Amino acid sequence: MEDSAHTPPLDARELLQRRAAELPGLISFAGGLPDPALFPKRHLSRAFLAAISERPSSALQYGWPEGLPELRERIAAELAERSIAVEPERIIVTSGAQQAIQIAASVVGTRPRIAVERESYPGALEIFRSARGKLVELEDDAHLYYVMPSVSNPRGQSMSATARGSLLARARACNGYIVEDDAYAGTRFDGGGEPPLLASAPERVFHVGTFSKTLCPGLRIGWLIPPRKLARSTLKHKQATDLQASSLSQALLADYLRTGDFPALQRRARARYRRKLRRLLAAVERELPQLRASPPIGGFSLWLESSLAIDDSLLLERAIEQGVSFDPGQQFRARPEKTLAFRLCFSAVPEDQIETGVARLARALKRLTR
Amino acid sequence: MEDSAHTPPLDARELLQRRAAELPGLISFAGGLPDPALFPKRHLSRAFLAAISERPSSALQYGWPEGLPELRERIAAELAERSIAVEPERIIVTSGAQQAIQIAASVVGTRPRIAVERESYPGALEIFRSARGKLVELEDDAHLYYVMPSVSNPRGQSMSATARGSLLARARACNGYIVEDDAYAGTRFDGGGEPPLLASAPERVFHVGTFSKTLCPGLRIGWLIPPRKLARSTLKHKQATDLQASSLSQALLADYLRTGDFPALQRRARARYRRKLRRLLAAVERELPQLRASPPIGGFSLWLESSLAIDDSLLLERAIEQGVSFDPGQQFRARPEKTLAFRLCFSAVPEDQIETGVARLARALKRLTR
Repeated sequence: MEDSAHTPPLDARELLQRRAAELPGLISFAGGLPDPALFPKRHLSRAFLAAISERPSSALQYGWPEGLPELRERIAAELAERSIAVEPERIIVTSGAQQAIQIAASVVGTRPRIAVERESYPGALEIFRSARGKLVELEDDAHLYYVMPSVSNPRGQSMSATARGSLLARARACNGYIVEDDAYAGTRFDGGGEPPLLASAPERVFHVGTFSKTLCPGLRIGWLIPPRKLARSTLKHKQATDLQASSLSQALLADYLRTGDFPALQRRARARYRRKLRRLLAAVERELPQLRASPPIGGFSLWLESSLAIDDSLLLERAIEQGVSFDPGQQFRARPEKTLAFRLCFSAVPEDQIETGVARLARALKRLTR
Repeated sequence: MEDSAHTPPLDARELLQRRAAELPGLISFAGGLPDPALFPKRHLSRAFLAAISERPSSALQYGWPEGLPELRERIAAELAERSIAVEPERIIVTSGAQQAIQIAASVVGTRPRIAVERESYPGALEIFRSARGKLVELEDDAHLYYVMPSVSNPRGQSMSATARGSLLARARACNGYIVEDDAYAGTRFDGGGEPPLLASAPERVFHVGTFSKTLCPGLRIGWLIPPRKLARSTLKHKQATDLQASSLSQALLADYLRTGDFPALQRRARARYRRKLRRLLAAVERELPQLRASPPIGGFSLWLESSLAIDDSLLLERAIEQGVSFDPGQQFRARPEKTLAFRLCFSAVPEDQIETGVARLARALKRLTR
């Protein structure tokens, strides 16, 4: 429980990543950030002024732990667009998807066995480790299965019908629950998607969503749809955690979604991210032929693997010297592995810097492999 | 772990309180809500527009888990006004005081022994029960001592110098930590206050504050100052919990605090709350002579006790029939007690409804005692 005396106290990797974030001229492929050029500032300002003048109590006062009724209806409508039928009453508005995952994990119990994919979202791994959970594989018996069936992070792949079937069968057999993290679902380049696990097994699935990837993360608004029989304990946990999500963000968001700008924004975003990915893939193929990548079907990143036994923190250090940064692979891995892997996020990099960034990265890697 | 099938599922007391909240014409002494007439809507709108146009990335993008540097500086400056010297680097911005308490409790460990006052903040009791903690008394050995030394909830009293001294000695003797919940500190009617426990024992105190009582709760912004040696694990817990507090609320708040309106708002608020309390005290003395009350030195509420063996939920039911509601006493009690007590919040009741509300309550009580 005791920390070092540093202020703020950080480990080596965090220190590197923070240092990188402050370097002028650095090209950052790190972080899973949406492109800020897509933030609909004008529409959000209008929504704010509408919310604060027309319904100041909703925007500024305390609200119910499950969230603003109007926003829950809007979220249900968004889900209906993706053929997910959910009554608004089942939706709990959360302070981002991170909190939704954290609540689901704590509802399931203390020191749970949690099954995750070989590579997974670092924020979720952090929650499970904080909860003193035991990480196991998707093929094992577990109290909780954490998956991203629509668009995975870091790989940007969807789960096959076979894998979905096995997962559901496994969870049923051992009476386990599933956290279906749908955070990136709205970023699929084809705008489509299979029905979520929630549709097949509503009694077993905690469905998690967010506006952080499709609108903006600064609002910190996500949602959680718990299995019916855990609805009460889930809401209790939400309330104990932080009473409720920001009233201001909720009121603003409800108003924004009413303007009708959101579908158009999502189309613009998909086109932009697809373009950036295309440039990144071409640059990686040219400059980093020793790395393997599978083109993602959505999401913000490209996952690169190799058979090189290189420490990713060391590569990051060299990369920062060259003026580029990325997300080291180890933080996505449930169990440490020896071979080099890392994640390149194309989402927030200015389009015309992608080639330069990859060339810098190639130079950094060359210095470690020659 | 299993819930009933209700949607949304509620227990009897919650159901009553929710029903009350929707009744037209009901006078509510429930909830600890600030007076919405005090929300500085114009200043907040200006702050929003400044934040979103001048620093859209701070307002809409992801930020660091510890919070926006500028806001941490403003919070340090606010604390300095109250003679609390804290470096901004030590402050973690949280999603309200509730989360700050929750994080402190989880840093201290699983199933902790937590000492609380005889009556305490229900939200904190909920956290400790959720964490499967054992509630003990302030005189006992504990891992964590939860107190509100500046202005307590529900009593609205400050802790005496003797009680502070004993608490610190006790915590030191058993190597326990203290959560100093300063949520209501800014609401003292005299605008003053003793130095916080943080000043006497920074190595042992988690200091908790919030803008929910002095500005508006809808922003969901509070803060946590952990003991130095727990700074790293506290920040890790904050990050695992919800990544960060709302960027939008933080940017807006930083801008609002820069405008200089806050001190004037606090003066207006103190005058208004003092006036409401005076009317409530007079009405209670007249209409409810069988109840005991000690005038609070700050806060939003009056705590009323009696030697009557009446169930507070039953009284609430009768009160709602009469068109008034309040917070039942049992939810503030660490251990159930037989005698009737309850909390009347004067803060959000329109001033001219206070007498009518108390008269209705007196009628409800009369029906149960005759």
